[in-house]
Amino acid sequence: MLLAFDDESVLASRLGAALGVEPRTIDRHRFPDGETRLTLPPSLPARVVVLRGLQQPNDKLTELLLAALGARELGARHLTLIAPYLAYMRQDIAFRPGEVVSQRHLGALLASAFDAVVTIDPHLHRVASIDEVVPGRRALALSAAPLLGDWIAAQLGQPVLIGPDEEAAQWVQAAARAHGLAAGVGRKVRRGDRDVVVEWPSIDVAGRAVVLLDDVASTGRTLGVAAREALARGAASVDVAVTHALFVGDALASLRAAGVRQVWSTDAVPHASNVVSVAPLIAAALACVA
Amino acid sequence: MLLAFDDESVLASRLGAALGVEPRTIDRHRFPDGETRLTLPPSLPARVVVLRGLQQPNDKLTELLLAALGARELGARHLTLIAPYLAYMRQDIAFRPGEVVSQRHLGALLASAFDAVVTIDPHLHRVASIDEVVPGRRALALSAAPLLGDWIAAQLGQPVLIGPDEEAAQWVQAAARAHGLAAGVGRKVRRGDRDVVVEWPSIDVAGRAVVLLDDVASTGRTLGVAAREALARGAASVDVAVTHALFVGDALASLRAAGVRQVWSTDAVPHASNVVSVAPLIAAALACVA
Repeated sequence: MLLAFDDESVLASRLGAALGVEPRTIDRHRFPDGETRLTLPPSLPARVVVLRGLQQPNDKLTELLLAALGARELGARHLTLIAPYLAYMRQDIAFRPGEVVSQRHLGALLASAFDAVVTIDPHLHRVASIDEVVPGRRALALSAAPLLGDWIAAQLGQPVLIGPDEEAAQWVQAAARAHGLAAGVGRKVRRGDRDVVVEWPSIDVAGRAVVLLDDVASTGRTLGVAAREALARGAASVDVAVTHALFVGDALASLRAAGVRQVWSTDAVPHASNVVSVAPLIAAALACVA
Repeated sequence: MLLAFDDESVLASRLGAALGVEPRTIDRHRFPDGETRLTLPPSLPARVVVLRGLQQPNDKLTELLLAALGARELGARHLTLIAPYLAYMRQDIAFRPGEVVSQRHLGALLASAFDAVVTIDPHLHRVASIDEVVPGRRALALSAAPLLGDWIAAQLGQPVLIGPDEEAAQWVQAAARAHGLAAGVGRKVRRGDRDVVVEWPSIDVAGRAVVLLDDVASTGRTLGVAAREALARGAASVDVAVTHALFVGDALASLRAAGVRQVWSTDAVPHASNVVSVAPLIAAALACVA
């Protein structure tokens, strides 16, 4: 059975269609005191798949853990979590003494509640594999970068793909490969949550269509800085393609202000910029874990 | 060591004073994408006490679980949670098929993260004891009702204590006992989150000062209905005393509109109405669990 929280209905429908099943809803009623009443289908089969993206994660994680424990009481024996966006992946070491290494602990919490975890383009940097994040459980990290590469090539032919920082290298390479796109990766110097500088790669973009590609856009500051840099170097146009369209606060407006023409994303995170669905990718992967 | 989240500083200071220790802070930095960076003291002793009230619980519970896991990595071997307000105690059965029994699952999550749990006036109804809520761990439910009884007697001499519903009976009796206050308990009929009726107990309040007493005030609707009923029956004044001053939305204004004169509460939940501190109560109890 495919279960999805009541605000995940778009991706749930697409995933249900790809799997040939009717998704069922986890209903949430929010009481005035901030507690959530969760309602699942009254009787569950042994194998259950739960769809829950973890953007803006804190609220959702509590609801998810309660729902997982509830699902086991209602008959589920094997629980698979599909978290198209997995939070806390960037907090993978203590940058200063005493900092909580939330990536590891989030993984432990998910491992305590689920038998398998499927995610898309998790922001793994100092940790090599999603298996290390979710200890002792089946974990699978899919990549939407090839789908974004297909989309970009269909729109623009042969643009230049630029990753704004070294961490984007894996996604830029995966997106560029199938269509032999020119590609480069910058170097990000971060001075605070919202203050970044991008050192440009040794690739000429004068007169070329440039697509900035990354796994996630949050404040959009890094992409904005890279867009201004590309236009200063004579790029004919700058578009943005990301797997995860978080775009918090005024992120989209700031990208427009930086000269970005179009913003494309997958439906891993619901957003107006979604143009590519990850549903077929997830459906294919479920065959090996759920 | 006593650790408190950075927004718990008032009760943390009082508790530290009662224990003769300097409370240390769990610092929270909220990133634009909704993730929290938690920072603990870099080195922790074997025994650690964490103060975290769970009003508006979902966000806080995720942070609390991450902090507990982080604390163990930093040296804590025995973790005690002081949650002056414990959330999800009212969801103690499935009222309709498929409803998640969150009380039990919240307890399981706390039991997975802490060795002992101390709380104040938890809203236990169909479950007899806090031990059943937090399985396999040392759990302690303290009551602030006698402290509220002392405060009320000091303010008003011999008022009539009224519990707005049967679930308040335990607190009304505990508050009335030491000073031999007259007391009665009504019966609540709930028609929705915000629609309740109170059947009045067989006690004459004409010309008397009435104090409505309960464990928790959330929307304040029940207390407001009871206040109107008391005034309709000729009460000289109506004041309200609660352990947990949640007072969500326009709750306080609606109590004023219902004719309530004063609102008194403990500092178990920080609120402008706090007049009684639970710090000495908690300090005394820590001797037997922490």
